[in-house]
Formats: sequence, structure tokens, C-alpha cells
Amino acid sequence: MPADSPLELPPTTALLMMECQKGVLDASGKFAALAERAAAKGMVAAIARILATARETSRTVVHCLAVTRADGAGRYRNAPLLRLSGEGLTIGSSRAEVVDPLAPADGDFVVARMHGVSPFHGTELDAILRSRGVSTVIASGVSLNVGITGLVIEAVNHGYEVVLPTDAVAGVPAEYEAAQIKSSLRMLARLTTADEVCEALRR
Amino acid sequence: MPADSPLELPPTTALLMMECQKGVLDASGKFAALAERAAAKGMVAAIARILATARETSRTVVHCLAVTRADGAGRYRNAPLLRLSGEGLTIGSSRAEVVDPLAPADGDFVVARMHGVSPFHGTELDAILRSRGVSTVIASGVSLNVGITGLVIEAVNHGYEVVLPTDAVAGVPAEYEAAQIKSSLRMLARLTTADEVCEALRR
Amino acid sequence: MPADSPLELPPTTALLMMECQKGVLDASGKFAALAERAAAKGMVAAIARILATARETSRTVVHCLAVTRADGAGRYRNAPLLRLSGEGLTIGSSRAEVVDPLAPADGDFVVARMHGVSPFHGTELDAILRSRGVSTVIASGVSLNVGITGLVIEAVNHGYEVVLPTDAVAGVPAEYEAAQIKSSLRMLARLTTADEVCEALRR
Amino acid sequence: MPADSPLELPPTTALLMMECQKGVLDASGKFAALAERAAAKGMVAAIARILATARETSRTVVHCLAVTRADGAGRYRNAPLLRLSGEGLTIGSSRAEVVDPLAPADGDFVVARMHGVSPFHGTELDAILRSRGVSTVIASGVSLNVGITGLVIEAVNHGYEVVLPTDAVAGVPAEYEAAQIKSSLRMLARLTTADEVCEALRR
Repeated sequence: MPADSPLELPPTTALLMMECQKGVLDASGKFAALAERAAAKGMVAAIARILATARETSRTVVHCLAVTRADGAGRYRNAPLLRLSGEGLTIGSSRAEVVDPLAPADGDFVVARMHGVSPFHGTELDAILRSRGVSTVIASGVSLNVGITGLVIEAVNHGYEVVLPTDAVAGVPAEYEAAQIKSSLRMLARLTTADEVCEALRR
Repeated sequence: MPADSPLELPPTTALLMMECQKGVLDASGKFAALAERAAAKGMVAAIARILATARETSRTVVHCLAVTRADGAGRYRNAPLLRLSGEGLTIGSSRAEVVDPLAPADGDFVVARMHGVSPFHGTELDAILRSRGVSTVIASGVSLNVGITGLVIEAVNHGYEVVLPTDAVAGVPAEYEAAQIKSSLRMLARLTTADEVCEALRR
Repeated sequence: MPADSPLELPPTTALLMMECQKGVLDASGKFAALAERAAAKGMVAAIARILATARETSRTVVHCLAVTRADGAGRYRNAPLLRLSGEGLTIGSSRAEVVDPLAPADGDFVVARMHGVSPFHGTELDAILRSRGVSTVIASGVSLNVGITGLVIEAVNHGYEVVLPTDAVAGVPAEYEAAQIKSSLRMLARLTTADEVCEALRR
Repeated sequence: MPADSPLELPPTTALLMMECQKGVLDASGKFAALAERAAAKGMVAAIARILATARETSRTVVHCLAVTRADGAGRYRNAPLLRLSGEGLTIGSSRAEVVDPLAPADGDFVVARMHGVSPFHGTELDAILRSRGVSTVIASGVSLNVGITGLVIEAVNHGYEVVLPTDAVAGVPAEYEAAQIKSSLRMLARLTTADEVCEALRR
């Protein structure tokens, strides 16, 4: 997909939502700045529009979640982020749940992982996509700083085309978002907007 | 490793050098801006100091290379970067070789891949490190924009501690380097310098 | 571990139980012959003894399960076994549960997968084991024909030492068990018995 | 592919040849019994017929090799087979080469690994196949005891359909071959013969 052609999203397109969880998008939590940035740009509403369209048009929908066991077992603490984020997203807790506007529906897939910082490694995500013939993924959610970047790199490594609606992702600080997209993700993904994605899904 | 403690690099530390190849660090090539930035900050010299010290102290050394077949077969072209970089690093060509100051020596490992943008996925890198009991990796080379970021994320996913000497990596433009390190990699890796790495390797 | 030395099981040993699920070990189900063979040799009782000892001695315990969604989505049907086994182990159903004598307890890990025929690929199993420093795995459960063989091969690929208590696994027909162990698994795993495993775990 | 339908091999079929190396198929080497069995059944000639047809019909061809460094570094010795096979297939040696009738030609892929016992884990094999749109793999080579079984299980895990020409694989002892195919591989692969494969490739 050259950047100047109209966006095409074949039936084999999947929507991936990264860590849109209550404990992540919580303005009073550990990631308050990120939550504020996501709120300021209307990220959840943008993803919700894509999600509704993806479901209407029978695309594959996957919620990619980070979770921890109550006893903290089964995960590495081998990075500052993982030492920080630690015990905030306990399985079964409200904080581990997807935010209400994006709550999983029947037919959606939920891929939760306890380890690492990106959604493909050591999970069934690739097997799910591949078993459904998915060729193209729409990356959405948080954060551009780590998780979305990891998602995009892993998706490229696995052979998928990646579409990035820049209003459906968030990172901090706000000025880093633009720099990161321009200097890193633009080389890996087709940049677009939530509205263009919705139009292309409907075509 | 909390950021304020002295850097410790156990015997199980490995040096990873990312795509320090003639065709990448070529001031007249496709990645001229990156090559210029690496030259301006003395990146290759900084890596060379770490490399010499790593070899002296019997650490594992791995050259992570991107290569292509002359016929272009066996790789995806599923991202703008991969459509661009395409046929420049042909196996057996001078451009695919590591730059002279970092040339592989006996005992070094060379892990070349034809696909994707980061060094762990679909390669023996993890098996090599794991078979040698490696716990900590030093990330060096290019580019911060994509490859080093991918390397760091994948290393964290695989359970390694990551050490990032900021003068031994390069990205473009120069001002993006600092932003990327501050806003992304600082959460995943211990930031340091080539000199501190050399001291810690010798301790 | 040479085969003639006493069995040693370090604190970093984990017990893996493969698909000991009600819908698999069901004498009236699709895998009736396998269920009968497991019953005839007392496989579940042998695993239960190891499981009790592993818990007493604080070893890592992992239940490796095969599950399917009610709508069948998210899995390949790319092999005769997968076309057959299909919709029998629906998430949330009694048939997907572990048999009562081996039921998961607090502290155990449960790794359920929808795809494929072995437990490491595309799951968190390796990350869980690695984050806990596991070096050695005890393979138990069903079936020697496919799943246990896959588990053993994958564990070797990931760098683990494998211990196989031959009374804690089952395959069909009975005479194939011995042939398979002698001609295949003996080259990949240390052969032993449940009682020897229990003794070694306690030492 | 139900077992009773005519064999169909789409253009997206690849031929995988497992460890058909001089040091493996050497009647005076460590694996003499396997070499004798392969010779007795004419395995190399059967593979050579498939290979010629695969090349004629522009299918993807991959040689999957086991190799070791002269210094033995970079591989686990975590299984009896790996402690035995150790230093016999040194990179650059004649023993590591593919046997003459199957020697790699331009356009073939060669995927060599230093670790483990099967060809997909920690190699570019899946990326190569996937980048070429491969859906179906023909499994050939040695040994049924370990490597071919691992290849088939991994291929199924990655979503490929597997075709197994039983005269193009070998294991020991001879009577184990039939048992292993009947009791294990028949559930994972479509059984066929080299001649049927050649016909289907030409259709």
C-alpha cells in the first residue's frame, strides 16, 4: 500500500486494540499522563467508531491485554516498565477489564499476556489471525511509547501489512507522538485516520 | 538494575550489534542521513571500544545482520521500510558486510536474517544466547528509529535485562534520538555510555 | 543427565501435565482407546503422586490444555487430528476441565491453547517457565502419539532438560507406547518412573 | 484434505527436505542404521524425483540442515541425541553438505540451525514459507524418529497442511517406521507416496 493510494482494507483485515484497559486509561493511576493524553485526543471514541464498523463488516477483532496474577507469578520484572506496572492489572479485577466503550462482545477475541511488552510474543495472537487468513492489521490503543511500537514491529515481522490510524493511538508527551510516528512508525505502517479506516472497511 | 545503582554486567552479558553493515552505514547510500548521524557521534568507535572489551573479557558477541538474496526471494515487502531497503544488502556483497572496525572475529556469532525489522524473530539469536546462559544484553548499532527499538522490545519479551549505551546507537534526526530514548527506551533498558559499559565489563 | 546416573531434579524443575482433561480422558468419548489405556496403566494416579510432591516441594506446576471456542473460531483445522478433535473441549464446559484428581490449585499455572497440537508454540508456557528460572521439565499426560512427543521436542528446542516418567504418560495402542519411547523419546528425554521422580523431587 | 480424495498440491506447496546431509546419511557414521534404512528403501531417489518435479513446477524448495560450529558454541546439549550428534556436522565440512543427488540449486532455500531437533523453531523457515504464500508442505528426509516428527508437528502448529510421502522419509528400526506413521503421523499429515506427489505437483 503506497502512502498516496486510497486506503484499501480487504475482508482479511483485523482490528487490534492494545491494552485499552481501565487500569491503564485511568486518570488517577500510574499512567495518568497517558490516560489524559488519550482522553484529550478522543482516542477511545475513535477506536469505538472503528470497532463498531469492524463488527458490522465482520472483520476479526482482537483485544490485546496485559494482566498479572494476584501473586505476581509468571512474569518477568526485567525492565523499568515491568517493575513499575507490576501488580496493577490483576486477573479478575476491574482494572484489568477493557474500558466500557470498547468492551469485548461475542465473536471478539481476547488475548491476555502476563509477560513482556508487546502482544504477539508468546501468545496465540498470530495463530488466531493466521487461522482466519488475516493479511492486514489495524493498530490501535496505547501506548505509542512502547506497546503500539512493539505491536507494529512484531506485526511486520510476522508478515502483516499494518495500518495506523493516528487518532486511535496515544503516547506521551503529546509532542513525542508526532515525532515517533514521523520518525519510526511511518516506515512500518500506512498512516491514516479512524474515519478513513471506517470508510475503507465499509467499501 | 535500578537506574541509580552502579552498572553491573555479569559474565552472562552479551554484546549485540545491530546492522552495522557497510550498506547501511554508507554516507552515499539509501540511509545517508543515518550514516551521517552515526559518523557525527562516533558511534562505530564507541561500539569498537565495547567490542574489544567484550572480547577481552570473554563475553558473547553477536552481529545481527539484515541480508537479501540476489533474487529477492524469501522476504516480505510488507512495510515501507522493507520496500525501500530491499535489494541493497545482497548476501556475499560488500554492502552486506560488517564495517571494518567491527568485523566479526573467530568466536563471534553472526545472525543474518532476510525478513522483518528486528533481530530475534525467526532467528537463532535467542537460542544462541540461551544456550550460553546469557541474562543481559548490550544493545548497539542502528537504527534507534526501528531496529534498535525492536531489538530492545524483543529482548525484554524474551526475559533479558537490556543495557543501552546511548553513544553506541544512532537514529535520525539527531533530536529524535534523545526524545526516543527518554520517552520509550528508558522504560525498557538501563541507559548508560560506552565507557561505563567498558568499565563494568572489566570489573 | 546421563541415563545411568541417579535422577536429579533441581529446585528449578517444573511439572507439565498435557491435556489431562475430562473430554480427553473420557472412556465414552472420541479418544476412548486412549482413555482406556491411561486408565489401565493408572496414569492419572501416577501423575497425581508427582503433582502432590511437586506442590509440597514448591516446584512450578503447569496444566497444558487444549480448548475451543463455542463458535470454533480461532483455530486451524489443518490436520486430521484437528478436524476430529474439533468442538469437544469448549471453553467453560465440563469436558474442557482437568480431571478431578489433577484439578488446578492456587499457585498452579494453566496454559490453554486453541491452536496446534503441542503446548509451547504460540503460548506463554516458555515465558512462564523462563521467568521462574526453570531448567528441567517433567513431561506427563497424553498422548504419546502426538501431544507428549510435541511437548518433548519443543522443550528440547527451548533448551530444557526433559524427564519422562513412562508410567505418567499414555499412548495407543499399548504396544506403540514402548516402541515410541524406545525409538524416539529415549533420544530426547531421561526415562524414569513416577516413583523415582517423587524421590528425586524430595531429595 | 480428506485421506480418500485425490491428492491436491496447489502452487503454494513447498518441499521440505530434513537433514539429508552426508554426515547423517553415512553408512559408516554415528547414524549408520538410519543411513542403511534410508538406502534400503531408496529414500534419496524418491526425494530426488520429488525435488526434480518441484523445481520443474516452480515450487518452493527448502533444505533444512543441522550444523555445528567448529568450537561447538551456540547450541544446547540438553538431550541424549544432542550430546551424541554434537560435533559431526561442522559448518563448511563435507559432512554438513547435502547428499549429492539432492544438492541445493539456485533458487532453493537453505535453512541451517545449530540448536534443537526440528526445523521451524528459531529459524527463518516459517518466514520464508509465509513470505511466499505457502499453504502446504511436503515432508521428506530423516528421521521419522525425531526430526520429521518435529517438522510435522511444528508445521501443523504454524497452520500448514502437511503431506507425507512415506517412501521419502526413513526411521529406524524399519518396523518402527510403519508403527510411527500409523499411530502418530497419520493424524497430522496426509499420507501418500513420492510418485503420487510428483503426479499431483504436475497437475
